[in-house]
Amino acid sequence: MTIDPRDPVAVAQGLIACESVTPAEGGALALIEALLTPLGFVVDRPVFSAEGTPDVENLYARRGSGAAFVFAGHTDVVPVGDVARWTQGPFSGAVVDGQVFGRGAVDMKGAIACMIAGVARSDAETPVAFLITGDEEGPAVNGTAKLLDWASKRGERFSACLLGEPTNPDALGDEIKVGRRGSHSGTLVIRGVQGHVAYPDRADNPIRRLGPALAALMDEPLDQGTEHFQPSNLEVVGVESGAGAFNVIPGDATARFNVRYNDRHDARGLEALIRGRLDAALGAGTYELAFEQNTGDAFLTPPGPFVDLVAAAIEAETGRRPALTTGGGTSDARFIKSYCPVVEFGLVGRTMHQVDERVSVADLETLTRIYQRVLAAVATKDA
Amino acid sequence: MTIDPRDPVAVAQGLIACESVTPAEGGALALIEALLTPLGFVVDRPVFSAEGTPDVENLYARRGSGAAFVFAGHTDVVPVGDVARWTQGPFSGAVVDGQVFGRGAVDMKGAIACMIAGVARSDAETPVAFLITGDEEGPAVNGTAKLLDWASKRGERFSACLLGEPTNPDALGDEIKVGRRGSHSGTLVIRGVQGHVAYPDRADNPIRRLGPALAALMDEPLDQGTEHFQPSNLEVVGVESGAGAFNVIPGDATARFNVRYNDRHDARGLEALIRGRLDAALGAGTYELAFEQNTGDAFLTPPGPFVDLVAAAIEAETGRRPALTTGGGTSDARFIKSYCPVVEFGLVGRTMHQVDERVSVADLETLTRIYQRVLAAVATKDA
Repeated sequence: MTIDPRDPVAVAQGLIACESVTPAEGGALALIEALLTPLGFVVDRPVFSAEGTPDVENLYARRGSGAAFVFAGHTDVVPVGDVARWTQGPFSGAVVDGQVFGRGAVDMKGAIACMIAGVARSDAETPVAFLITGDEEGPAVNGTAKLLDWASKRGERFSACLLGEPTNPDALGDEIKVGRRGSHSGTLVIRGVQGHVAYPDRADNPIRRLGPALAALMDEPLDQGTEHFQPSNLEVVGVESGAGAFNVIPGDATARFNVRYNDRHDARGLEALIRGRLDAALGAGTYELAFEQNTGDAFLTPPGPFVDLVAAAIEAETGRRPALTTGGGTSDARFIKSYCPVVEFGLVGRTMHQVDERVSVADLETLTRIYQRVLAAVATKDA
Repeated sequence: MTIDPRDPVAVAQGLIACESVTPAEGGALALIEALLTPLGFVVDRPVFSAEGTPDVENLYARRGSGAAFVFAGHTDVVPVGDVARWTQGPFSGAVVDGQVFGRGAVDMKGAIACMIAGVARSDAETPVAFLITGDEEGPAVNGTAKLLDWASKRGERFSACLLGEPTNPDALGDEIKVGRRGSHSGTLVIRGVQGHVAYPDRADNPIRRLGPALAALMDEPLDQGTEHFQPSNLEVVGVESGAGAFNVIPGDATARFNVRYNDRHDARGLEALIRGRLDAALGAGTYELAFEQNTGDAFLTPPGPFVDLVAAAIEAETGRRPALTTGGGTSDARFIKSYCPVVEFGLVGRTMHQVDERVSVADLETLTRIYQRVLAAVATKDA
């Protein structure tokens, strides 16, 4: 082992070199185990399976006894895209102009490196756990949800969790995520009667009803937002109708939509709201509507001691008080929130999932110090 | 030759047995040549070619000199579809319960059989021509349009034309087609900005503008119809947008439409009308619009001696005065109208292009007598 666990840049480079595109482990979890074991952690790497999805390896590490403070994250990364457009190898970890390049640099191998370095530098006497999955960017079936269940069944208990997703839009210190909106998706099918375009009286063009359906879905906001959440939002993400010929009136039309919804709704209420709007626009019973891929309802870790502790650590290192937000996409925090308070704070997400994903060396150093401060504050509070 | 040219059922069965799915000749034109030659016709079978389309064989037959009365039609047929759903072989010509079954029975080998039988039975002394294409159901590039040009260059002249498309919705005698609407097609593309559905502010969902675009295209009629034409009609026949994922706002949305338009419009005016509506709904310059597949503007053979003559022949045999209509799809009459007056009258179209396409033996006999009467009346008028 030539990597110094206290050096977040070296650890990040080591992790980036592992080609761990979901669901491949790529050596990333093995490296974490090799780094944490000398720091006194007991490491497990359970593999979870489900029909129709690839097997995925995960990692759970624990040091000390009692309810543990948890660092959570994922080592899997999205594909590199067009490798020819990268200015540095996507698994090189090359440092150019003070930036570490590579897939996962900010989402989120960089943050995991800071967690490891923060723990390695810390002398805080508090139980700590690492909850690392290899299935966050994929189906998320054999990842954090099962790992939490697995740990819980072994009697593991958690005091609070910090998830290292890239939460900052522009600069370290911008935002802590204290909750996430729910995501729910649906498919609307309008049936008509196919026919020759020259004889519209003998057909029933479903596209004539698609316009009003789109208006019913999108024109009126779902709400005005709540104290901690922005307004819920529905986007129709796809429409599809037609046989590809100009002389055929199609037999049906489909619209697919996704809703990001706040704590004013739950999934069932949202479905009723949408159905009501479509009933008003199209007539009840004149269409088919199916919902799927609900990620769970919105959740919030309300402002309080744990959020304050993390915010204070960030302000101490960056000089900026982070905003408490709940916007953006979903994350594994939706699973963790059922076990303990969870907030999210990581690197700057601007280049995530893009070509030339990269993180500044300075940010890696600062985030390491923030995580170290959080650990110290948790230890003080526990004591 | 065992087929009696005066027997329309036998001739129809002979033609149906030829597997002449566009662009295959299938023996159908050879059979017509074999039937017409003994009746005193000089027969040519020119093959026409164009890049990107299959070569197609056609037939031109002429008897007598001077401006000829023309019987026009096509021997090509559409594919049989699911052969297992036919109750009789699609090329069998089987007669069951007084119905001749087979692809092309009504569209329009049956009508060609009646033309041949009508001519074979007639003693009218008038010049007659047959203009038969093998490319009506396909691209219609190597068919009637080129055959007319070919004949015209050889000095052929025509007094009037009867095209045997199936014009009757329900019963023989319903309708003569005295014109056809124009057909024009267009594609609308609305560009947006692709993005993640959780961050709609960073994207621009083109589907939000698709609803108003559909309304602009379809909600208001294009006109109220004219003396001989029904109202022009626009149908959006396809819409397409989306990456197939619920978490991606798509980058563009496409709508395809077809217009069947009457003699109040020409293609250029129609394009301007549609563009004006989209400009009002979406804003000028905010979308892309392209037109294609214009079949030519609407045309009409106005009521007059020729139309009266055909109507009288129909009434004499069916006891019903046919309506003069211009509805439905396009036909090769759009090419013929530039050379001579053309009307269309054929069999009952109800089963055309369907499984179990069929024609009644009685209708074949009646249509033969109608065509024979038309020939006699043309000869009397000419004399």
